[in-house]
Amino acid sequence: MEKSDIGVYGLGVMGRNLALNFNDKGFRVSVHNRKLPGEEDLLQKFANNEVAGTNIEAFEGAEAFVASLEKPRKILMMVKAGAPVDSVIAQLVPLLEEGDILIDGGNTHYTDTNRRLEELANEGIRYVGMGISGGEEGARHGPSLMPGGDHEAWPHLQPVVEAVAASSPGGDACCAWMGPQGAGHFVKMVHNGIEYAVMQLIAECYQLMSEGIKMNSQRIAETFGQWNSGRLESYLLEITADIFRVRAEDGTLVLDHILDKAGQKGTGRWTALTALELGVPLPLITEAVFARTMSSFQQLRQEASKAMHVDRKQLQDEGLLKQLQDVLLAGQLVAFAEGFWLLRAAQKEYCWEIPFARVAESWRGGCIIRSALLDPIAEAFREDPDLEHLLLAPAPAGMIATMDESSHSAVAGALEAGFPVPAMAAALSHCDALRSSRLPANLIQAQRDYFGAHRYERLDQPQGTFFHTDWQKQAGSS
Amino acid sequence: MEKSDIGVYGLGVMGRNLALNFNDKGFRVSVHNRKLPGEEDLLQKFANNEVAGTNIEAFEGAEAFVASLEKPRKILMMVKAGAPVDSVIAQLVPLLEEGDILIDGGNTHYTDTNRRLEELANEGIRYVGMGISGGEEGARHGPSLMPGGDHEAWPHLQPVVEAVAASSPGGDACCAWMGPQGAGHFVKMVHNGIEYAVMQLIAECYQLMSEGIKMNSQRIAETFGQWNSGRLESYLLEITADIFRVRAEDGTLVLDHILDKAGQKGTGRWTALTALELGVPLPLITEAVFARTMSSFQQLRQEASKAMHVDRKQLQDEGLLKQLQDVLLAGQLVAFAEGFWLLRAAQKEYCWEIPFARVAESWRGGCIIRSALLDPIAEAFREDPDLEHLLLAPAPAGMIATMDESSHSAVAGALEAGFPVPAMAAALSHCDALRSSRLPANLIQAQRDYFGAHRYERLDQPQGTFFHTDWQKQAGSS
Repeated sequence: MEKSDIGVYGLGVMGRNLALNFNDKGFRVSVHNRKLPGEEDLLQKFANNEVAGTNIEAFEGAEAFVASLEKPRKILMMVKAGAPVDSVIAQLVPLLEEGDILIDGGNTHYTDTNRRLEELANEGIRYVGMGISGGEEGARHGPSLMPGGDHEAWPHLQPVVEAVAASSPGGDACCAWMGPQGAGHFVKMVHNGIEYAVMQLIAECYQLMSEGIKMNSQRIAETFGQWNSGRLESYLLEITADIFRVRAEDGTLVLDHILDKAGQKGTGRWTALTALELGVPLPLITEAVFARTMSSFQQLRQEASKAMHVDRKQLQDEGLLKQLQDVLLAGQLVAFAEGFWLLRAAQKEYCWEIPFARVAESWRGGCIIRSALLDPIAEAFREDPDLEHLLLAPAPAGMIATMDESSHSAVAGALEAGFPVPAMAAALSHCDALRSSRLPANLIQAQRDYFGAHRYERLDQPQGTFFHTDWQKQAGSS
Repeated sequence: MEKSDIGVYGLGVMGRNLALNFNDKGFRVSVHNRKLPGEEDLLQKFANNEVAGTNIEAFEGAEAFVASLEKPRKILMMVKAGAPVDSVIAQLVPLLEEGDILIDGGNTHYTDTNRRLEELANEGIRYVGMGISGGEEGARHGPSLMPGGDHEAWPHLQPVVEAVAASSPGGDACCAWMGPQGAGHFVKMVHNGIEYAVMQLIAECYQLMSEGIKMNSQRIAETFGQWNSGRLESYLLEITADIFRVRAEDGTLVLDHILDKAGQKGTGRWTALTALELGVPLPLITEAVFARTMSSFQQLRQEASKAMHVDRKQLQDEGLLKQLQDVLLAGQLVAFAEGFWLLRAAQKEYCWEIPFARVAESWRGGCIIRSALLDPIAEAFREDPDLEHLLLAPAPAGMIATMDESSHSAVAGALEAGFPVPAMAAALSHCDALRSSRLPANLIQAQRDYFGAHRYERLDQPQGTFFHTDWQKQAGSS
């Protein structure tokens, strides 16, 4: 019997769709699923339905599943991140041989991937953590893939995963080797952090449109639809425009019935946590995470809206939409800049080689944050692979400059009118602090030296030389 | 020989000053210090100088130090947080008896205190984590003390630590039992997070005064001095006014020579990390942490100021100072509200009993964030010990309301003029999101359901019931 090119372990919707995607591309696929007591038999269901007429073979037993694979075996685990991954690894390792390749396609924290890679290297297993973005649709017809880990696995893996990945508008596979250890999962985490930021920026635009200038849903749909071109062309704008076109049977907008309590599965929060841990300022992404958290206190907000005075001013339509378009574009540039800044920090911290331009190119198709803006971003990193902060590159810096007046004006107007615009404001603050040759942090250093004798550096002395002033005494004597 | 009431292990400036403070209050004190190779002999130095004529006795050996203490022994460890604490514990435990009390007075992460308390409970040692704020001056003449841990230690400890604590303006000791496990260190961590926020708010005021309306240092000193009364009366404003009065020999302001690169020892960052972990939105405190981090990229900022267009508008003096005063007060209320909200989350997460009003009262003197504003805050928690969010209480909500127009106007003006005001903007966003009966998070839920089938709740259905829409299909068909 002919051996399979790849095995998929775990038949949730992502695993099933990836298996079908591999099959579409001409690969033979073995699938397996561990049925837990009380759970639906996903293997049987899959075997009885979509599998018919394909080159997919379903195996009830893990041993037969593993035995069905061409060596070196390539097994893509599509199970819930956390303990289930460890459990599947423990089950598979005794069945594998040296040189076999295990791939975790879940939303795993990169430090778990670091650990597992190290453990499995001792067993001779080549371990890969692969971020996958694009949701069900992406998995079925072309996701963005972000593999990283044991580099010796890559030559074996590359033809299979590149074949199923999405294509960029230029025709390249949206897939690149992101680096050693958990680099692939790290890149995916950053992708999701950016996703949180862009979604929150769009949500703030929506609030200003609907509450600030009282636009109806049809006009909002048209506006988001019009924005979805040129530099702003993006999947998230496309689906946002769609959402404003979906009506219930009674003609009301479905969106208007949705509870304003945003969920989160944790990857955005990981991005913010990692930024704090690595010492990189990511205010926009973090504000987006907090905005979701704040929305989740839905009952408390009802009480607060009664306890606290709320008085929002109407916003003037004129010119504001054009300005908001600029805010959204500038904000997205900052969101990407924050993400890439965190990648730079990870590269330094972990001595990874992250292919920055390829990251941007891999996000150009298939994934949730795919957008035309990634073209100049990829270009900036191709021109300068060591670019420390995206906004220092000529093209992005130039874009920000042309939008400066309009974006500041719009956000100031929204803030003055009483609308919460945490993501928009954080995006501008990020830019405005970054381009400050002087920040008022000298006062913070003076305060710290005053109350804690923490000492300070001087502008006119080499850095690393520290000074202390007896502020209280000297202030009193003056 | 008469036994000592308390032992102090570790003779850095904090340990020395606390020992002298205990002595001032009539206690007999034993002190000990572990001299590491190459380090200064702090014990000898202390014994030869300040100790003369006091009831402080210095011990070279740990055994004699421990033997000199009245039972149950009370030993305050004033050593660097982290491994040194574990090392001192390991050294002391064999010398201690059941019922003896070990107190960690350092800036220890509360989870370390949780762990040590549990380990030492098995040895019969009563473990206490005590946050100490007030810097060197506070340690010497009256700090704010935040003990928590093994409650059986408290009756023995209370008379000693209350005696050395600062007094509030009302005459109460700035010291309270904060709860079990690491609750004391948790409260101290939150104190420091609030401190970061208030310092950043003041720094932003300074930048707007000096760069925005070109005030000279004398006028800035006078302004901060004038603000330092009424509700705004605070230690941080007091020292800020002092700082603008300190000149070098050549007549220049010392502050102007300080490098604008803010340091941090990590407790503010812990607060932000804990907020993300416990799921409480703390945008102001987190922006303050990121503002310090951003300032630390001092070289990159120089490059960015050249690469990116910077065009800041002059701000109009008229009325702005009064408005900034309101921003600072409203911002401080939000800073405290965020801190207390995180305490509430910790109380729920860890089943702690945190005495909220007593926390506010304990911060009323001795510590860095002491301020008149803590009076109405303590009052709010006395009136409603279960108050979920400070800004929902009548007095704080009323204060915010009276400052709404001026604070929004000032921050909008600063933002429009191109000044980075991350903390100010985050404070307003916090308020404005909190009092929103509706937030645009319904769009985020719709997007998540569109691309990931994450499902959503409805306003007209009980929470916990989830719905899915095939958005793409329905948008296409409309």
